[in-house]
Amino acid sequence: MRAVVFDGDLRFSENIPVPDPPEGWARIRVLLAGICGTDKEILKGYQQFKGIPGHEFVGIVEQCDDEAWIGRRVVGEINVSCGKCRWCKRGLSGHCAHRKVMGINGLNGCMAEYCILPTSNLYRVPVVLSDEKAVLIEPLSAACRVPEQLHLTGTERVVVLGDGPLGILCAWVLRTVVSSVTLVGHHPHKVAVAKWHGTEVVQGTHESLYGADIVLEATGSGNGLREAIQVCRPGGTIVLKSTISIDEPMNLSPLVVNEQMLLGSRCGNFESAFQLLRRYPDLPLERLLTGSYPIEHAIKAFDKALNPDALKVTIHLN
Amino acid sequence: MRAVVFDGDLRFSENIPVPDPPEGWARIRVLLAGICGTDKEILKGYQQFKGIPGHEFVGIVEQCDDEAWIGRRVVGEINVSCGKCRWCKRGLSGHCAHRKVMGINGLNGCMAEYCILPTSNLYRVPVVLSDEKAVLIEPLSAACRVPEQLHLTGTERVVVLGDGPLGILCAWVLRTVVSSVTLVGHHPHKVAVAKWHGTEVVQGTHESLYGADIVLEATGSGNGLREAIQVCRPGGTIVLKSTISIDEPMNLSPLVVNEQMLLGSRCGNFESAFQLLRRYPDLPLERLLTGSYPIEHAIKAFDKALNPDALKVTIHLN
Repeated sequence: MRAVVFDGDLRFSENIPVPDPPEGWARIRVLLAGICGTDKEILKGYQQFKGIPGHEFVGIVEQCDDEAWIGRRVVGEINVSCGKCRWCKRGLSGHCAHRKVMGINGLNGCMAEYCILPTSNLYRVPVVLSDEKAVLIEPLSAACRVPEQLHLTGTERVVVLGDGPLGILCAWVLRTVVSSVTLVGHHPHKVAVAKWHGTEVVQGTHESLYGADIVLEATGSGNGLREAIQVCRPGGTIVLKSTISIDEPMNLSPLVVNEQMLLGSRCGNFESAFQLLRRYPDLPLERLLTGSYPIEHAIKAFDKALNPDALKVTIHLN
Repeated sequence: MRAVVFDGDLRFSENIPVPDPPEGWARIRVLLAGICGTDKEILKGYQQFKGIPGHEFVGIVEQCDDEAWIGRRVVGEINVSCGKCRWCKRGLSGHCAHRKVMGINGLNGCMAEYCILPTSNLYRVPVVLSDEKAVLIEPLSAACRVPEQLHLTGTERVVVLGDGPLGILCAWVLRTVVSSVTLVGHHPHKVAVAKWHGTEVVQGTHESLYGADIVLEATGSGNGLREAIQVCRPGGTIVLKSTISIDEPMNLSPLVVNEQMLLGSRCGNFESAFQLLRRYPDLPLERLLTGSYPIEHAIKAFDKALNPDALKVTIHLN
């Protein structure tokens, strides 16, 4: 099959074997795959991943023990857990000690004609959701993870640092709960995209933002955390969404003195994202799409995604 | 008066003017002052503090508008807040934007014959508490801050990294709430001191500690946080107690992947510490005292405090 492969270099191949789904798994014909910030980090060596990258997709189930799935248009949660370890038993299956993570750790991803996942990871996509929206369910669920981790009253002042797709999605999700959300970006086009449902946007950090109750760091840059600590109020919360694979010189004494809370946040569950889309059918996910490339031009797609002006770049398989 | 002064160098002086208490403040004749990890950081330039250091003391009120205080043996909270700024108004007076902090920021400390504090910061010391125990109320209240910030069920597995006085006090305080507390140290003598009320102690981090629900970092060293992230379970909490004034190269991506919470923790309120001592009159605070020096030998006292084998070193004024 055709696939994107990363083995130190990123390349396109036509000779990758079609994966066989084990018992309880499904083989999915990929329609559309998204390029995420984590994929860009993988190119720099994050998680030492080798294989087919990609963990944002929408596709059609083609092979599966359970015939009810066949022909269904699906998206899929990316963590494949063992169900047996102490974290799985404590309801922390997303943190399973033996987990594989699609396109990130130990399991091939979705930048290919076919990918495989356990059927327990799959969600049927409602007819009303286009492929272009469905491919964004994975990052949307990562954004939905944030309010799950916080105890929000709705009266907080929230500042989101970062105008990439994840920052924008987090701002939108938080805006559905909290009355004041300001997204700080540096790219006029991306900042403009973020305006929805009362989400405020500014270019660059103004002093007027200082003292925010919650600061979400989604810049993907090492400087983002320093800025977040500065913007956050004493006793406030900083949500760390960027996974950055390099060491950064960091002085955390302001965090101690100001008794701030720094909270790591990763994947969310897809059910929350579907629920949000039922409640806000006008959520303008399509605005996040910068361009789509056929898989044969995946290298070009990555080049485009690495352009600071780009939002979500997708790879299509038809 | 006699005092310890830090102006880039630490020295003892006999010619420092006795401080005059403003309205609402008290002048306190210091009996005993403790040397804290923060004082050691101040010698390295922390907070750019210049003046009389010291923020742990017990003393006798000698001058005050309110005669009820005169002659009382007292300890005092170290943050002097404005009562007017937005943080004070939100009940965050410990984080007052205009605060002075005794011996740390903008206000002379207690390593002197006399110090001054607002009477609203003072607490009478019960007769049953010796000066040697009373001087530890300030660090004990900092330890009491930790359970105030967490939502404990009592079933957590807690690991405390660091066998200094603050680490030991935090372990003891947490042990009064939580059934499993293990203190990890590197100094046999200090680790032995930490055994109280079922607090377990080990030398060096064993793999058996991995997966702790809560890890408290009180090593005072830059490596402590890296170790804490490793020991803490996915979704667990790391409490950061050490204030370290230098930049450390740090990769926080494990914090994101494991969705850990990093919580800065500073001063507590003295009422909690008194309450704890009423409930646990056998709390062996006196074990933490390594030695006491007359103020004339304050430099020797600091030398002793900087010795890794030392616990709490005090300076006495009589």
